[in-house]
Amino acid sequence: MHDRLRNKSLKERLITPSEAAEYIKNGMTVAASGFTPSGYPKAIPLALAERVAREGNIHINLLTGASVGNELDGVLAEKGIISRRYPYHTNKILRDRINQGAVSYKDIHLGHFPQQIRYGFFGKIDLALIEAAAITEEGGIIPTTSVGASPTFVSEAEKILIELNTSQPLELEGIHDIYYLEDPPARKPIPLISPYERIGSTYIPIETEKILGIVVTDIKDGVRSLPPGDDSSDRIAAHLIEFLYHEVKKDRLPHNLLPIQSGVGSTANAVLRGLLESPFENMDFYSEVIQDSVLDLLDSRKLNGASGTSLTFSEAGLKRFYKNIEEYKHKIILRPQEISNHAEIIRRLGSIAINTAVEVDIYGHINSTNIFGSDIINGIGGSGDFTRNAYLSIFTTPSTLKNGSISCIVPMVSHVDHTEHDVHIVVTEQGLADIRGLSPRERAGVIIENCAHPDYKPILRDYYRRSLRKGGHMPHDLQDAFSLHNRFIEIGSMRD
Amino acid sequence: MHDRLRNKSLKERLITPSEAAEYIKNGMTVAASGFTPSGYPKAIPLALAERVAREGNIHINLLTGASVGNELDGVLAEKGIISRRYPYHTNKILRDRINQGAVSYKDIHLGHFPQQIRYGFFGKIDLALIEAAAITEEGGIIPTTSVGASPTFVSEAEKILIELNTSQPLELEGIHDIYYLEDPPARKPIPLISPYERIGSTYIPIETEKILGIVVTDIKDGVRSLPPGDDSSDRIAAHLIEFLYHEVKKDRLPHNLLPIQSGVGSTANAVLRGLLESPFENMDFYSEVIQDSVLDLLDSRKLNGASGTSLTFSEAGLKRFYKNIEEYKHKIILRPQEISNHAEIIRRLGSIAINTAVEVDIYGHINSTNIFGSDIINGIGGSGDFTRNAYLSIFTTPSTLKNGSISCIVPMVSHVDHTEHDVHIVVTEQGLADIRGLSPRERAGVIIENCAHPDYKPILRDYYRRSLRKGGHMPHDLQDAFSLHNRFIEIGSMRD
Repeated sequence: MHDRLRNKSLKERLITPSEAAEYIKNGMTVAASGFTPSGYPKAIPLALAERVAREGNIHINLLTGASVGNELDGVLAEKGIISRRYPYHTNKILRDRINQGAVSYKDIHLGHFPQQIRYGFFGKIDLALIEAAAITEEGGIIPTTSVGASPTFVSEAEKILIELNTSQPLELEGIHDIYYLEDPPARKPIPLISPYERIGSTYIPIETEKILGIVVTDIKDGVRSLPPGDDSSDRIAAHLIEFLYHEVKKDRLPHNLLPIQSGVGSTANAVLRGLLESPFENMDFYSEVIQDSVLDLLDSRKLNGASGTSLTFSEAGLKRFYKNIEEYKHKIILRPQEISNHAEIIRRLGSIAINTAVEVDIYGHINSTNIFGSDIINGIGGSGDFTRNAYLSIFTTPSTLKNGSISCIVPMVSHVDHTEHDVHIVVTEQGLADIRGLSPRERAGVIIENCAHPDYKPILRDYYRRSLRKGGHMPHDLQDAFSLHNRFIEIGSMRD
Repeated sequence: MHDRLRNKSLKERLITPSEAAEYIKNGMTVAASGFTPSGYPKAIPLALAERVAREGNIHINLLTGASVGNELDGVLAEKGIISRRYPYHTNKILRDRINQGAVSYKDIHLGHFPQQIRYGFFGKIDLALIEAAAITEEGGIIPTTSVGASPTFVSEAEKILIELNTSQPLELEGIHDIYYLEDPPARKPIPLISPYERIGSTYIPIETEKILGIVVTDIKDGVRSLPPGDDSSDRIAAHLIEFLYHEVKKDRLPHNLLPIQSGVGSTANAVLRGLLESPFENMDFYSEVIQDSVLDLLDSRKLNGASGTSLTFSEAGLKRFYKNIEEYKHKIILRPQEISNHAEIIRRLGSIAINTAVEVDIYGHINSTNIFGSDIINGIGGSGDFTRNAYLSIFTTPSTLKNGSISCIVPMVSHVDHTEHDVHIVVTEQGLADIRGLSPRERAGVIIENCAHPDYKPILRDYYRRSLRKGGHMPHDLQDAFSLHNRFIEIGSMRD
């Protein structure tokens, strides 16, 4: 504990989780550390849920970096404690509450969220709950497996509760790079010009008088299980890597590519695995989330390093990371999400952004968030931050889902998260559509012919032909644009 | 002419417009200067059209900064010369050709377009046609009333034709600030930290051996007529300024606001007129287009200066500008569109982006480009560059069009150019909706109640209520989402 709580005067602020939970009052806006279930507070929310079970309901607005584990989102949503939630989530219980309208959720670009808090768009933050690996002598917080929006939460919150988590190794110290942005009109350029530069401090500075209490816990991050590999993902990865190879040959990409951003999930893993087996060397990784396959790429020396805002390893990946943490620490940097996802940096570095689509339409619009226009899955996350500023923006999706009853290529997407102006490449297991410079009519041709599943090609061609008769720059028949979606709602399949 | 063509050795390259037009061959990609009908070549395209009338058809891909005048887009589109066109247009003849499918058009963010040319996304540029006010001794081009994408066109084109336009006053020299960006992976921060800083040269450097010929002409820019004021625009402006005042009071904006970006048209003019009469002082203007009302704001000393990429004055505005050009030159800067519209700068300065919507849906998605999903009007222009990186993003629209037969507030927009993640404020003459931090269900309430026309409120409430029964985070009924659009197509009105 001496190593973990180095500021002696703060020792008297050690309290129990239930004492800490008493500070959370009805109506408060609470901001918690955590990003893609890593580095979020666990003991205090669990104690809050117990208190609510005993004393009756409390409602809070909950802000985090991105998704957090079940101890926070799941348990609090189940007890009806969360009334408002920003900016991203992945928890099933919370998702159901949001789709029922019981939780007011706004889906916000992760790179814009911290500045909008500072701008005052969401009111004041009453309390920040921050997980720490240690507290420095000066009272600075050493974050754990994510940085997320914690620097902004700490500076903006009126009061702070810290969870000192002894399950998070002390060796994490030094992996973080905490940089603070000015706000307009006084902003300067962000002095980051290569992916692994360090421009900040290794801890989050804090006014110690704001600390209400410090809770010690050893509850582990609810790590992800490694997504299963599948044939479809491997084929998507193969198409994508062949395309990158082609771009290098055409001199539109350097031999070592450009810094890669990759989402999470089975396709993202397959793409990173594909890069491992590819001829590319000396690659860079400037992304949001660092997962198992990044360790493979680092170990093989294919990657020069990896910059992100959180570590989301599997159980096995975490063990592997901790075993060689001192070595990995020289190659991995965790930054505030405002920097990892900042338009200025992504545009400057010239990112290759690879993200997953829920559905893609024949003109190249992307739905990343809402099923049938209405039900949110998770949220846009960082996909917009990277896509909108990328050198090359790529979206992957299987051509069909649910045994072929859903086509992921549709006449018109039921929700638009990325517009036709922002999408360069679409890949499914069927093939790849390069839509740069193509008119909508040309895009419809390559997306249907290269990406759609053979079962759906006739249906999509038929929609396009009928719309073409009505004419227009982007021919649509608004009577029929959602006919595939409506057929699914009616008969459980988009097929005739 | 001595003042205009200062490099003596280039005098022997003076040729006639029809000699110049001979250099344009079938299948070429031609890039022309010009932005929001200012500073585009006129004599050479007119000569090309004459040649085609004589000799039969030629097809070219035409790239420009943004919209250009009738001598280029209109005349060439009419003769069927344009087969492909990027990244923006406003010409009626061309628009019809695009919507008929006779011209392949891709609508591209103006701030991203130049880098995508350098990246090679659109193939090589055979020929650049650049309007100049003068050619320096070293052979550098002094641009005229716009900069647009000309610096990139000049550096990337294989060959160059220059139109030396004597109707453009020589006093324009010094107003331009030509800065070149590196391309990744070697990019540095752009050293622009305040709106009126100069970071480049006053001319476009050029390899003189690429100049095929220089044509002298005195054809004037096809200036815009001043959009008529109307009661609806004035009411929109009043709501908006009241809101800005409120934000200052709440300490979410400084007393002199933040740099304003404003589109063109009657509402934009009304907003700028409104600012003239507002209590705000020492305001800044970092935008794309500089129009008449900016001169009023400069003359009143309400604005500290104005940065853009083109001047689009009315006939009267142009006279006024030229009369005091030496004075205005100290306050107005014309930059490449890649800088005026750059994500890095807009985000750094903290822009207040004010743009016009074609339609807005009850959840805050914006259509800026396509009527009934299919027919393009102009294009997204710079609205995405500013909106996506703004401190505050605002969209204005009248609540209805065509004598009330069209509601600009609809259940679901028929094309999405700006997503729910990027829109903060919606204003119509009916009122203003501040949707920051609101869930979709909450947004539907304020957008319908504050912004929709009273005639359409019951229709929109009814759609929302029926969708709500189906549930979801963003309740929609995909059978009915375009019912207003389809009713208009059927009976010529969105009303029952």
